[in-house]
Amino acid sequence: MNLKRFQKVLREKKIDMAIVYNWNNPDPNLFYFTGLSLDYSFLLIPKKGNSILATSKLEHERAKRHSKISRVREFDRPAFEFLGRLVKRKSIRTIGINRSSVALNEFSAMKKNFGRKKYADIGRMLLEQRKTKEKDEIMKIKRACSIADRIFAGIIRNFSFRTEEDILKYIEQQAMEHGCRLSFPSIVASGKNASMPHYRGKNVKLKKGFCVIDFGIEYKGYMSDMTRTIYIGRPSKHESWLYSILLRVQKRAIESARPGMSVSELVRIVKKALGRYEKNFIHALGHGIGVQIHELPSISEASKEKLGENDVFTIEPGIYFPGKLGIRIEDDILMTKKGPVVLSRSKKSLVAVKG
Amino acid sequence: MNLKRFQKVLREKKIDMAIVYNWNNPDPNLFYFTGLSLDYSFLLIPKKGNSILATSKLEHERAKRHSKISRVREFDRPAFEFLGRLVKRKSIRTIGINRSSVALNEFSAMKKNFGRKKYADIGRMLLEQRKTKEKDEIMKIKRACSIADRIFAGIIRNFSFRTEEDILKYIEQQAMEHGCRLSFPSIVASGKNASMPHYRGKNVKLKKGFCVIDFGIEYKGYMSDMTRTIYIGRPSKHESWLYSILLRVQKRAIESARPGMSVSELVRIVKKALGRYEKNFIHALGHGIGVQIHELPSISEASKEKLGENDVFTIEPGIYFPGKLGIRIEDDILMTKKGPVVLSRSKKSLVAVKG
Repeated sequence: MNLKRFQKVLREKKIDMAIVYNWNNPDPNLFYFTGLSLDYSFLLIPKKGNSILATSKLEHERAKRHSKISRVREFDRPAFEFLGRLVKRKSIRTIGINRSSVALNEFSAMKKNFGRKKYADIGRMLLEQRKTKEKDEIMKIKRACSIADRIFAGIIRNFSFRTEEDILKYIEQQAMEHGCRLSFPSIVASGKNASMPHYRGKNVKLKKGFCVIDFGIEYKGYMSDMTRTIYIGRPSKHESWLYSILLRVQKRAIESARPGMSVSELVRIVKKALGRYEKNFIHALGHGIGVQIHELPSISEASKEKLGENDVFTIEPGIYFPGKLGIRIEDDILMTKKGPVVLSRSKKSLVAVKG
Repeated sequence: MNLKRFQKVLREKKIDMAIVYNWNNPDPNLFYFTGLSLDYSFLLIPKKGNSILATSKLEHERAKRHSKISRVREFDRPAFEFLGRLVKRKSIRTIGINRSSVALNEFSAMKKNFGRKKYADIGRMLLEQRKTKEKDEIMKIKRACSIADRIFAGIIRNFSFRTEEDILKYIEQQAMEHGCRLSFPSIVASGKNASMPHYRGKNVKLKKGFCVIDFGIEYKGYMSDMTRTIYIGRPSKHESWLYSILLRVQKRAIESARPGMSVSELVRIVKKALGRYEKNFIHALGHGIGVQIHELPSISEASKEKLGENDVFTIEPGIYFPGKLGIRIEDDILMTKKGPVVLSRSKKSLVAVKG
């Protein structure tokens, strides 16, 4: 399905053939179309007709057996030379490549082996295609979210972790039990560590105070991404109050989201709602999720995108006080015709556990 | 240390400043120099003097606290504009970039923001620098190897796995117990699946016959990579004989390796030793390991490299019969002045386990 949808875009943009591949740099679009993570492989997508998956001997048998592509060819000469023979014909004038992934030396190899061609950037088209999820993709993300919910419930059920790493290990082990991988290295940041949005610690004893737990599950190649901030010990009135402000802002953000709404408008609503804490909110409000952990829509003030039907994205405001504390609350949202549906179901009221 | 060594190369090649970064594409060289995996960050390495690590707000605190670089700057404008201000001065004429990682659209952003500059490819220099390991790097790889050895011993100790995934899970769980990640998705391929060098299965019952187990441990960012092929059930005479041929070839390859030897010569020795099974050997003989799972030296017939002192690489001949069986034996080797030292110590005689 997704190949046909993309071929329609190619025809509209007058691109005769697109090439999507993993060579120096991994391009997630190859997985998106083939359903397999293949090293050293190229997918040639003509504007009409069957795509060809060209691959090395090492991947050939696996590509033939398990990919969604029926025409699989094995290199019988150096890769770009091999591709050259497939794209040399005159009817292929314009070749689409992903300029955010194609490396300079690969482009040189194309120009050397492909003959006189025009090149068009398909990077944005690929991102935009992937922004709108298809049914099977939504199912997979939902499943990833529900596994993450179960893991989070396990974390707070009998909280007896001693170090940040203990929680990280628990998450990883539970993911494995579900036959899944993590979408990204989890973040568990307690005490003042929580003021670093991308914190990673080693052998750090859990400190009293807010503890940010941010993790995601990858289910059949599709990602979830959820953050909950719990409290270790007993929060002060001021701390509870800070948390409740952020939670109110996060809920408000979700409720305000509508299909067709411009992303920047949503961000403005959030910033206004944060009031004096706007300056403590130092990252984007959210991002699309799918085969990558960051995809469209990118939910930041500078973004010109709109929230579309069947987009799946995070809403994750946070407030940070460097060297002191940090709080972040993040959900995964599916946008439907009728409005937002929250896919991550873990409870959001402040959970305090024994320190 | 490694920065100083690289700055010397820059001076020799008349490059005024090198830029190594993670933006669209991950470049492992950023970790190599900074000791941290940083998203959206740039390391500017002048031919002399202190390097600058430029990073986003999100990573700034972590970069300052935990990276090897003392001068850390935070973007106060869009990244390439920010970098432009740092490289605009006239004394910087030639900028070194990694052409196998820099994407076409990033290069456009450089040309737009950096003023008139010459660009030189540092991709090969970086690979060559990393080929020769420093002491602390060797220590980390050794540790990764010894953890892998312990895990393999655990696999065969009380073999009671039912599916290929059970073994995969065991490896992953043990890695976690050691506080490590895997260097790559492990491969466990039994029966005819073993004929696919990059096989990945789901919920597949272990089949009788050869079972290829290929996995690696990442310890503090440094990788090991080992393969053992065990037998599930009782091997026939012919099968034992096939295994013994491959094992002899693998040992022969290691013994033949000498510092200063050309890689292609080593491959020729192996191919000759394989005799009629040469055509069943369908991948490279080996590859360097370090911060990446594949680095220099690349040990294939086409390679023009030589084995150098303090290179660390795999030796992994295999023979494959599509749809029937596969056998591969892989060790990690450190080349020293006196010759090869095998870092992976798991036993190589054929282990047969109950099916």
